[in-house]
Amino acid sequence: MRTNPSRAIDDATLADRFAKVRALTEAMVSPLSDADATVQSMEDASPAKWHLAHTTWFLETFILRDFVAGYQLHDERFPFLFNSYYEAEGRRHARGRRGMVTRPTLDEVLAYRHHVDAAVIAALPGLPAAAVELVALGCHHEEQHQELLITDILHLMSENPLEPAIWPAAPKVPVEMPGPIGWIEGAGEVVEIGFEGTGFSFDCEGPRHATLLRPHAIADRTVTNGEWAAFIADGGYTDARHWLSDGWAWVQREGIGAPLYWERRDDVWTRFGLDGRRPIDPAAPVTHVSFYEADAYAAWAGARLPTEAEWEVAAAAYDVSGGNQLDSAGPVEPRPSAGGPAFFGDVWEWTGSAFRPYPGFKAIEGAVGEYNGKFMSGQCVLRGGSCATPRGHARASYRNFFYPHQRWQFTGVRLAKDL
Amino acid sequence: MRTNPSRAIDDATLADRFAKVRALTEAMVSPLSDADATVQSMEDASPAKWHLAHTTWFLETFILRDFVAGYQLHDERFPFLFNSYYEAEGRRHARGRRGMVTRPTLDEVLAYRHHVDAAVIAALPGLPAAAVELVALGCHHEEQHQELLITDILHLMSENPLEPAIWPAAPKVPVEMPGPIGWIEGAGEVVEIGFEGTGFSFDCEGPRHATLLRPHAIADRTVTNGEWAAFIADGGYTDARHWLSDGWAWVQREGIGAPLYWERRDDVWTRFGLDGRRPIDPAAPVTHVSFYEADAYAAWAGARLPTEAEWEVAAAAYDVSGGNQLDSAGPVEPRPSAGGPAFFGDVWEWTGSAFRPYPGFKAIEGAVGEYNGKFMSGQCVLRGGSCATPRGHARASYRNFFYPHQRWQFTGVRLAKDL
Amino acid sequence: MRTNPSRAIDDATLADRFAKVRALTEAMVSPLSDADATVQSMEDASPAKWHLAHTTWFLETFILRDFVAGYQLHDERFPFLFNSYYEAEGRRHARGRRGMVTRPTLDEVLAYRHHVDAAVIAALPGLPAAAVELVALGCHHEEQHQELLITDILHLMSENPLEPAIWPAAPKVPVEMPGPIGWIEGAGEVVEIGFEGTGFSFDCEGPRHATLLRPHAIADRTVTNGEWAAFIADGGYTDARHWLSDGWAWVQREGIGAPLYWERRDDVWTRFGLDGRRPIDPAAPVTHVSFYEADAYAAWAGARLPTEAEWEVAAAAYDVSGGNQLDSAGPVEPRPSAGGPAFFGDVWEWTGSAFRPYPGFKAIEGAVGEYNGKFMSGQCVLRGGSCATPRGHARASYRNFFYPHQRWQFTGVRLAKDL
Amino acid sequence: MRTNPSRAIDDATLADRFAKVRALTEAMVSPLSDADATVQSMEDASPAKWHLAHTTWFLETFILRDFVAGYQLHDERFPFLFNSYYEAEGRRHARGRRGMVTRPTLDEVLAYRHHVDAAVIAALPGLPAAAVELVALGCHHEEQHQELLITDILHLMSENPLEPAIWPAAPKVPVEMPGPIGWIEGAGEVVEIGFEGTGFSFDCEGPRHATLLRPHAIADRTVTNGEWAAFIADGGYTDARHWLSDGWAWVQREGIGAPLYWERRDDVWTRFGLDGRRPIDPAAPVTHVSFYEADAYAAWAGARLPTEAEWEVAAAAYDVSGGNQLDSAGPVEPRPSAGGPAFFGDVWEWTGSAFRPYPGFKAIEGAVGEYNGKFMSGQCVLRGGSCATPRGHARASYRNFFYPHQRWQFTGVRLAKDL
Repeated sequence: MRTNPSRAIDDATLADRFAKVRALTEAMVSPLSDADATVQSMEDASPAKWHLAHTTWFLETFILRDFVAGYQLHDERFPFLFNSYYEAEGRRHARGRRGMVTRPTLDEVLAYRHHVDAAVIAALPGLPAAAVELVALGCHHEEQHQELLITDILHLMSENPLEPAIWPAAPKVPVEMPGPIGWIEGAGEVVEIGFEGTGFSFDCEGPRHATLLRPHAIADRTVTNGEWAAFIADGGYTDARHWLSDGWAWVQREGIGAPLYWERRDDVWTRFGLDGRRPIDPAAPVTHVSFYEADAYAAWAGARLPTEAEWEVAAAAYDVSGGNQLDSAGPVEPRPSAGGPAFFGDVWEWTGSAFRPYPGFKAIEGAVGEYNGKFMSGQCVLRGGSCATPRGHARASYRNFFYPHQRWQFTGVRLAKDL
Repeated sequence: MRTNPSRAIDDATLADRFAKVRALTEAMVSPLSDADATVQSMEDASPAKWHLAHTTWFLETFILRDFVAGYQLHDERFPFLFNSYYEAEGRRHARGRRGMVTRPTLDEVLAYRHHVDAAVIAALPGLPAAAVELVALGCHHEEQHQELLITDILHLMSENPLEPAIWPAAPKVPVEMPGPIGWIEGAGEVVEIGFEGTGFSFDCEGPRHATLLRPHAIADRTVTNGEWAAFIADGGYTDARHWLSDGWAWVQREGIGAPLYWERRDDVWTRFGLDGRRPIDPAAPVTHVSFYEADAYAAWAGARLPTEAEWEVAAAAYDVSGGNQLDSAGPVEPRPSAGGPAFFGDVWEWTGSAFRPYPGFKAIEGAVGEYNGKFMSGQCVLRGGSCATPRGHARASYRNFFYPHQRWQFTGVRLAKDL
Repeated sequence: MRTNPSRAIDDATLADRFAKVRALTEAMVSPLSDADATVQSMEDASPAKWHLAHTTWFLETFILRDFVAGYQLHDERFPFLFNSYYEAEGRRHARGRRGMVTRPTLDEVLAYRHHVDAAVIAALPGLPAAAVELVALGCHHEEQHQELLITDILHLMSENPLEPAIWPAAPKVPVEMPGPIGWIEGAGEVVEIGFEGTGFSFDCEGPRHATLLRPHAIADRTVTNGEWAAFIADGGYTDARHWLSDGWAWVQREGIGAPLYWERRDDVWTRFGLDGRRPIDPAAPVTHVSFYEADAYAAWAGARLPTEAEWEVAAAAYDVSGGNQLDSAGPVEPRPSAGGPAFFGDVWEWTGSAFRPYPGFKAIEGAVGEYNGKFMSGQCVLRGGSCATPRGHARASYRNFFYPHQRWQFTGVRLAKDL
Repeated sequence: MRTNPSRAIDDATLADRFAKVRALTEAMVSPLSDADATVQSMEDASPAKWHLAHTTWFLETFILRDFVAGYQLHDERFPFLFNSYYEAEGRRHARGRRGMVTRPTLDEVLAYRHHVDAAVIAALPGLPAAAVELVALGCHHEEQHQELLITDILHLMSENPLEPAIWPAAPKVPVEMPGPIGWIEGAGEVVEIGFEGTGFSFDCEGPRHATLLRPHAIADRTVTNGEWAAFIADGGYTDARHWLSDGWAWVQREGIGAPLYWERRDDVWTRFGLDGRRPIDPAAPVTHVSFYEADAYAAWAGARLPTEAEWEVAAAAYDVSGGNQLDSAGPVEPRPSAGGPAFFGDVWEWTGSAFRPYPGFKAIEGAVGEYNGKFMSGQCVLRGGSCATPRGHARASYRNFFYPHQRWQFTGVRLAKDL
């Protein structure tokens, strides 16, 4: 949520943005059947229908219920079903059983969306500033769920032995193999990181604060599929020396030997994507790797992962709205880069930093305050945004976070080293 | 399968029966959405769509593929998806992941059914006797899955916090509370049990063989909901003395305190059914109880469960086609009995007999031989058929079997005692 | 417990028997350290110290506490620690945590034994008949625990990578390989089984009752290690057709490919025993196989397991006190047979019968009534006694029982077939 | 290991230190029986015998084997048993099965110790500098295991329903209740942290490096048992708002409602310790709390945990050799403080910092390099040393680390806040 709640927001602009965000979500589920939208493929993932409804519940609860006099819930049974984790909002359906909810149907959930959308748009002109900000927050919240929606659908389809493609493949544009990594050097100095300014940010991105860097270099591109295949070929997954102890235990226990969705078929590495199973593109950024894998790769490569401060300082010089990010519904995936260094899009980049509060961080009061702060243990920070991140959603200060074993998001690796 | 494979079968009769059986299955899924038909609510249950497809795979594999020259599989990817447990038929999708198969859709599965139905009907006149028998077996196999389909749908709906009713409630016919149990006495003598005759039976029902009964009495009706509520009120679930050791551990571990689907609401026992949640009917047979519960109830009541031989001998005098069995799609459930003793319909009755081979049992050669024999450990025999058993499917010699903790089927209790 | 409680017992004879039984138990633990006697190697097994104390608690509770006026418990904290499963005797230490009890020490437990032994011997002349019977029951109970003690120690030692031998190997007596199985035929007729007479028996062995056999033959010896090696070499553990469904799942899940304690070393099958790891003796009975393995072997061999009635009728003609049974502490193990058919000793023989109550069975009132009856679900009957069964303990009517996957007891296989 | 490997070490001093450290370990196990020393109470803990042997294996492997020509292993089977986690040293016994090793006995392990001790002392004068350093490392390694030994024994005894005291209680010295927390302020400035100097340190304590603090205050004492009881009384364990999401899930799943070893008896909070179960001392520092609990307490108290840099800078002004640390074998436990602020001893203090490498950290080559670096994920840093930390072992720069749910160590809480 915003660090700067008093700024002016233009209602018409917001209404337009709201409509576009909500529409993109629905475009993304357009190829899904009711069944596709209902099944939960693992505890970490949620059904598409749940994402559609939860983001709507968020708007209905924190805006319509709290700020619109006389508003009646669309269905009083929905809060129990579609609250995610807000303890202050009362009891809720067990996360691992979200896939049991075959009813309401996809169509009924879409009707719920349209009802709430109309109510928000109608209410917008009369909302107090605090509620207007919640509309903006609702848009950002929805964008986060767009990305989860894509990755959760991908995971579900990967569990179907038929390996359905839900989108036709994008046309292939031949791209040269990227050359060797170039290194962007950074001095040892006190710098400031964290969000500052008049736009939107999440609470965990602030306060902006000084931090001390040491002399270092950060790669000008992420690791490619081709480089990852070399890591595998060199025994990267079978040599304990590269691995953190927890990572090695995970590799052994889960039988991990390649990124998620990779399979060796007829002596060729393939990956499963929204367009089905296809050979990997050696020039494209590797994705669907865990923190453990990222760290092991870096150790194998004689490098390390960047800290989030190193990343943020380096990224500040690059265009946050460039690169391969989500613009429209379709078979998103990391793509080979045509141009020079880029820090946004394609894959979220694991950093070596634990997701902990910045100095001076205070969670906001009330249910919305459960947004980020309570997740600040055991997770790692990722930076940059991916091919599934709506363009405009990420920032240089944006802090994404996942557990070190998770890899169903579009997660990749950028190297760094000490100077 | 038949014990008497050489008997004549009238093709027209069989074709008619085949069409009716297949149609009833589809009528039963008529209120289901694609999503309803896709989700798997627990490892023991299967998605409705899977039942629809698996029964079709059975026909396609053992009849069309094996006996119809030039038959092309409707979809060569389906055997992997829809084989249940036939090891001889090769690898198959993991049972616990059946709910991941959002595609093919329900409509596509129905198209698969219609394709195979047409092919079977077309082939029927030219099939050799062995294949004709497999058509008859396919009908019986389908009937078994009709019952599973109903109970699996019920379980799925029970997992939805909204507790949807998929059928309107049947009109209530007022019935008097049943009087005290009457006891049907049986002598100590050598009797014969097991299937014999010219009709169809499953391999595990034979060979017919002599067995020795001891003097005993068997109840003329099953235990009612009202009687079960008295057992609960008397502390039946909290007194270890009534319980088998494994049963007591199950009660403790799972927190069991009432039949499945029962909940206490506003000081009234309710049950969930295909018509939603409603108060229990104290006059109706109790159902959704496990073998452990059945055994504990019998111990509490100073009785025991009947052996399967006692049951079969007693049941032989009653009308196998009477009682509350499945005739058409709708909100089936056990109902209070209007008349005298009955042994068929309403609920499957747990016996005290382990599901083991009869003397002289030999499993049939080939994949179809995996039908029953390999399940002959750890399970208990149930007799009689339920409200979800297609009328005509059960026989006095019919042996159903489940593990002692399972209770999502329409399972109930008939008492017996020594004389 | 006795079926014939009114018979006379000679106190001096009983005192002598009591002393011998109690002494044998202690001889068996003589090679154990305090640590050896304390550790619990798995949930199914108990520490040796626990067996020593539990059998003593049994005597102290049901004889001294209940029948000796003024008796003070040796240690009032022991009942909580050493009650096994008697719900009527109150709360008790969790079975899986028995290995946490490093104190009392082995010496303290032996002191507990000696204290209770002296008190029982002193009380014996004045005990009422019911209590005298409990002394006899206590002896039989102790003998059961002697066998468990041996098998639990063996299991513990097998978990130590050093594979310690706790006894020196017995001298090897060269024995010829047994010839082909001979078949003992049995007629189809009504026979009586179950305990009858004036001696001791457990409640589950009765009532004696008529049962109907069919024409059959039962092997005159058990399956040997050499025959089992042939089963393995023929792919017995990798061909699903031989296996019950539950058994096949067990084989897959646990990675089973040979009897427990077998390992292939330098191309030779070895087994671990109380005398350490040594090559298998191909002429000796195979042991440490589960019911699932026994059933699969029988299927592979074109035979079946005997019913417990077939076994009991055949065994009645043989010497219950012959064969390889436990006489003294030492490295017991199944041995090749020198002579003709034998039905007692070497290995417990899996039957095809589920452990269920005999017709007319009633559990005794009170805590001692929890002895057998409550275990009558999910387990299989074994007959005959093993090399670890104290000579004099087993009878033709004796019913041992274990779950179908268990195999740390000395369990083996005798084949049968229909005629 | 040392950051400064070239410094001179006085052999006589080192020999003396070596002897004292090794002797203290043995004094600590003096009240243990063979059984006490053998049992493993949980996966996180190891048997006392294992600690005794593992520390000896460390010396034998990295000093005697690698640097003493002609040295023969005391027992060539021991490396498999007593290697902890050094992948480079080959296969090893599964951590969770350490408690199965009843043999070698405690006496045999002590003989192993004495053999290796003598060999090390004899070899010392002739060892090269690198090996001499490994002797020093071996002493520090042994001290770490002394602390684990104490906490693992405590855990084992707590699992015994008899709750044995292995030491008599220390005499109670009456101490006044501590007054309110005083706050030590720290400026916002660049400081240096990490080890520097000529003494010993572990690799993870360096390199010394600059870091930027923000204005803050850190408490002058740790939280007491009395304060913790107030937290409980105020519903601290039942209000989700105080808790990190992972912590709340842990509280729910494990049923946590008080520090480990606390039990409410007769309306009094008691704790279990090496001297048995006794009432808590409200003036003493709370201990056996997890990071999750520490963080929740801080949130409830309106404060936060200190960063490790804040802690280290504040602690630098205090006497590292003061306070309640381990000097001799006995019933160690946190004690009320008599004097002013102290930063060492009593309890390890959870910081808010994740255990990650310092800038420029490089793990040492070879097996010893597995010492710390590979554990740098998922764990939290603790500072200060406890009542079970050998005096002289800890330093201001010392970084201890555990997973956020672990609490069987002497772990406590010091608060901090922003200024």
